[in-house]
Amino acid sequence: MDALGYYNGKWGPLDEMTVPMNDRGCYFGDGVYDATCAANGVIFALDEHIERFFNSAKLLEIEISSTKEELKKIINEMHSKVDKGEYLVYWQTTRGTGRRNHVFPPGPSNLWIMIKPYLIDNLYEKIKLITMEDTRFFHCNVKTLNLIPNVIASQRALEAGCQETVFHRGETVTECAHSNVHIIKNGRFITHPADNLILRGIARGHLLQACDRLNIPVDEREFTLSELFDADEVIVSSSGTFGLSADTIDGKNVGGKAQKLLKKIQDEVLREFIEATGHAPAWSRA
Amino acid sequence: MDALGYYNGKWGPLDEMTVPMNDRGCYFGDGVYDATCAANGVIFALDEHIERFFNSAKLLEIEISSTKEELKKIINEMHSKVDKGEYLVYWQTTRGTGRRNHVFPPGPSNLWIMIKPYLIDNLYEKIKLITMEDTRFFHCNVKTLNLIPNVIASQRALEAGCQETVFHRGETVTECAHSNVHIIKNGRFITHPADNLILRGIARGHLLQACDRLNIPVDEREFTLSELFDADEVIVSSSGTFGLSADTIDGKNVGGKAQKLLKKIQDEVLREFIEATGHAPAWSRA
Repeated sequence: MDALGYYNGKWGPLDEMTVPMNDRGCYFGDGVYDATCAANGVIFALDEHIERFFNSAKLLEIEISSTKEELKKIINEMHSKVDKGEYLVYWQTTRGTGRRNHVFPPGPSNLWIMIKPYLIDNLYEKIKLITMEDTRFFHCNVKTLNLIPNVIASQRALEAGCQETVFHRGETVTECAHSNVHIIKNGRFITHPADNLILRGIARGHLLQACDRLNIPVDEREFTLSELFDADEVIVSSSGTFGLSADTIDGKNVGGKAQKLLKKIQDEVLREFIEATGHAPAWSRA
Repeated sequence: MDALGYYNGKWGPLDEMTVPMNDRGCYFGDGVYDATCAANGVIFALDEHIERFFNSAKLLEIEISSTKEELKKIINEMHSKVDKGEYLVYWQTTRGTGRRNHVFPPGPSNLWIMIKPYLIDNLYEKIKLITMEDTRFFHCNVKTLNLIPNVIASQRALEAGCQETVFHRGETVTECAHSNVHIIKNGRFITHPADNLILRGIARGHLLQACDRLNIPVDEREFTLSELFDADEVIVSSSGTFGLSADTIDGKNVGGKAQKLLKKIQDEVLREFIEATGHAPAWSRA
């Protein structure tokens, strides 16, 4: 099977799976998710993603219908059913099923899994960004299914021939449509604090740990659009990309001024991934 | 049939209907909806709701797969299949179907309809409210499926033994979890302007038109929490409730100081509903 869908114990080819119309995910986006990449039969950093998933659910008072260990087992079992290769393993829980009514339903939550082929991006290729005012809600620390602003921002990037959109609230840079964003300046790695305005990215965490191992000082603090454009390097991270660097934002050249330091960090997060999965991404073997 | 579900041409009992797991509504909440009540085989203010629905879709660049006339015909046809009674007629469109990817998919959008029995609230019964900081996004003028903050706020109201939650951004009152909110003060009807912080409620529009016919002056302007608590009357409106008045907010007594004016407005919106549907709500015949 090339792509798999799972819903409350039933599974099959992703594109043929159906779910109840009355699932609260369908009309309220009332759920949370998490996702990570997998290769060589190993799901990368699964424990960390499950930990965050349970935290997201807790913040919305959704009771997940399994323990962390049980969930891990189900996800691994589903992943074992797809062909070998690089995958994105995605799962979500929604706050139960019932006729549309805002207040919480009495029944159990639902578990969804979607596993699909995914090519891990080349870590050393430059990407292009645009910027956009961050008009999202104030719960960006929760990985919810309420993603319309992220969808629109991603589409705007595509239309501009770019790969991601950097959100900013006024002058303050927050994160991207589906990634975190960080800068390197004067040898320091600078990233927005993990408050309610950004998702606490797992890849972000791995970058911070890599900096720590490499003795690169980290500042978890707000930074401005001016600092973004003036940065020595601009790094965009997600669990599917680890930590890509940008060479233009809104058509202006950025970064490229701390290439050695950037490569040290990228090499380190790539090393960690290869060590954990025993798999070098397809692009690194080309 | 007591409740009906419809999805892209297929229909059946609501609680048995399924939809593709790959519908973008399921994992991004990537869609918009509208809803209104129906009685005696007549869907109230359907044209206005369809107009707003198309406007919501346009604001998110979702192309609805039918004309307004075709959609109206489908909704009416589905409504004709349920038993006689009071119903909530709800429909939504989602931005197509495909494996999860933020950017817009190539295919057509999907049409969902859900019709379920619904008892229209007694217009003259008082309701109780709580208040909560409005932490939603800045696209509240679009009737989207991204409703987690609304769900949480509704649950908080229920837990407090109340019917609705009034949102405020700082001192400024915006709207409720699933209604608009207005005040009467010194003979004037005051309501938040229809900007991006509130939904332009159809019931709100009917209240404003009723005020116009009754020569009650209307101020579309921001008002504060203090003004809310000091109001002569506090009115909460939605397409399922027309315009209920509150007697407590956060446990404090409010309103009750312009009862005659309030009743004039309520009588007028009820008259309009009865005239349009030929149906007096069940509670008014008890």
